[in-house]
Amino acid sequence: MFTDKLIEKINEKRSPVVVGLDPRLQLIPHMVKEKYFKKHGKNFKAAGEAILEFNKTIIDNVYDIAAAVKPQIAFYEQYGIEGLDSYIKTCRYASEKGLLVIGDVKRGDIGSTSKAYSNAHIGKTELEGELLEAFPADAVTINPYFGDDCTKEFVTDVQEYKKGIFMLVKTSNPGSSQLQDLISEGKKIYEIVAQMVNNWSRKNTGKYGYSSIGAVVGATYPEELKTLRKLMPSSYFLVPGYGAQGGTAEDVVCSFNDDGLGAVVNSSRGILYAYRNKEKGTEAEYGKVARQETIKMRDAINKALEENGKKYW
Amino acid sequence: MFTDKLIEKINEKRSPVVVGLDPRLQLIPHMVKEKYFKKHGKNFKAAGEAILEFNKTIIDNVYDIAAAVKPQIAFYEQYGIEGLDSYIKTCRYASEKGLLVIGDVKRGDIGSTSKAYSNAHIGKTELEGELLEAFPADAVTINPYFGDDCTKEFVTDVQEYKKGIFMLVKTSNPGSSQLQDLISEGKKIYEIVAQMVNNWSRKNTGKYGYSSIGAVVGATYPEELKTLRKLMPSSYFLVPGYGAQGGTAEDVVCSFNDDGLGAVVNSSRGILYAYRNKEKGTEAEYGKVARQETIKMRDAINKALEENGKKYW
Repeated sequence: MFTDKLIEKINEKRSPVVVGLDPRLQLIPHMVKEKYFKKHGKNFKAAGEAILEFNKTIIDNVYDIAAAVKPQIAFYEQYGIEGLDSYIKTCRYASEKGLLVIGDVKRGDIGSTSKAYSNAHIGKTELEGELLEAFPADAVTINPYFGDDCTKEFVTDVQEYKKGIFMLVKTSNPGSSQLQDLISEGKKIYEIVAQMVNNWSRKNTGKYGYSSIGAVVGATYPEELKTLRKLMPSSYFLVPGYGAQGGTAEDVVCSFNDDGLGAVVNSSRGILYAYRNKEKGTEAEYGKVARQETIKMRDAINKALEENGKKYW
Repeated sequence: MFTDKLIEKINEKRSPVVVGLDPRLQLIPHMVKEKYFKKHGKNFKAAGEAILEFNKTIIDNVYDIAAAVKPQIAFYEQYGIEGLDSYIKTCRYASEKGLLVIGDVKRGDIGSTSKAYSNAHIGKTELEGELLEAFPADAVTINPYFGDDCTKEFVTDVQEYKKGIFMLVKTSNPGSSQLQDLISEGKKIYEIVAQMVNNWSRKNTGKYGYSSIGAVVGATYPEELKTLRKLMPSSYFLVPGYGAQGGTAEDVVCSFNDDGLGAVVNSSRGILYAYRNKEKGTEAEYGKVARQETIKMRDAINKALEENGKKYW
């Protein structure tokens, strides 16, 4: 199952780091983009191909030091069909390089429609008796607003296809408090969502005691991370917001259990576009600089884990 | 702006009906599918083309009696790139036929990522100084879980490109009560979301007094519709759940204001697949049967509106 594989990748690479693949064309090196603009003109085809080349270079530089990649589908969707083609090829390339792929799709809808989203991203689509894959990912992020009757559709495919889901619990943005921190019967909304996740998680654990039904909890809310860690002991956490959004290694320590497991930490901008700080390297060295930043992040988290008695290896 | 155009379509066609284009390949007439399976084999290309032909026939039969269509993107996404290509072509065909297009995408994410989704679906994507369109729609549905800092990204494009958004407030599924009906400080969560919508709406009204920042409220919850109508007087409601999900003309009356405006009502399965009831017509007559069902729905809603003193024309 997904989380068993994830833990094995973390152990093999000595790294709970997830590299977020959020292609922002305006931040991609000119030398990468210009080639495709010359070839195709200023269009989505050029954008898709430039993004794919950029992602492949990043993947080539981090595949041995990151457990997974997390392509954020919104950044591909904005380049239309060609952008999504680039998303698919990025996922496949990362898989070939031994990385797990967490599709950050944040989908969710009412029951039968959630099933269609699940088919699209972690399950398969039935076509006259044959089962076909639409978008490849080992796990996806999903939205809790609809309730358990919709989550169920994804859970069915988690079990059937050995995939994973991460439910949004507490998101990393400043405005997340507006709805997620409201209090109902003495509990915050994100705590109630955490209980919903835990109800699914505790019944679906793998050989390391963790479930493939996980939670998204922002690194930017360390106090909430502590509370949520206790409420969902068997859920794996996907922790975004490290680096560019302000989360530090100390902040994310509380998303791990005492066994040193239980969380993967994502950084996107802080790794991908580090080359734009000229002190770190030249434009042509963007892959190397991304590798340096990933190592720095991995080492900082591992050190913080060790100092807090949460060493896994 | 979007809602002005929507009201003019409703008035022109004497119909607040939205036809939901939710292609379920297993329910599409064999005569439509077989042609493409023979041509391309059992693959997504065949699926995409069959769906497009089916949708075009539906559109040809309802364009003069419906205000808008609402393609549910999940049902296209499950057929991969080819499915999404069919989504785009469906949207364009519907526009050409004078229908407004509400992309039922239910997207949402943290700030900068919401901007990418907004670029993708109602705004434009900047590409080296040029602005390009990824997916065409006049309005989209969005998810409220992240908070206003994310909604803001969509609102910016609503204003810039004269588009619309419908925020999920109370969804039509049985499990929607689990999170949406929780009570915080004496108010239900969906009421708090309604206040968020209203805060955006009341500042952004058009010439008929309605805003292009609307709300999704399920026809399956008529009591909640009444409450929500009062909380969001200037928001247009998109009301799904009519027909196959159980909502009736009497149920949806309370989603309209006394001026007979303020809501559009969606039916998908009840229209598209009505032909499968052999008493209604043959397989070859699926377009004609869809038209009959749309007329029946339009007339039932108009009659209920008239009986409740909410006649618009």
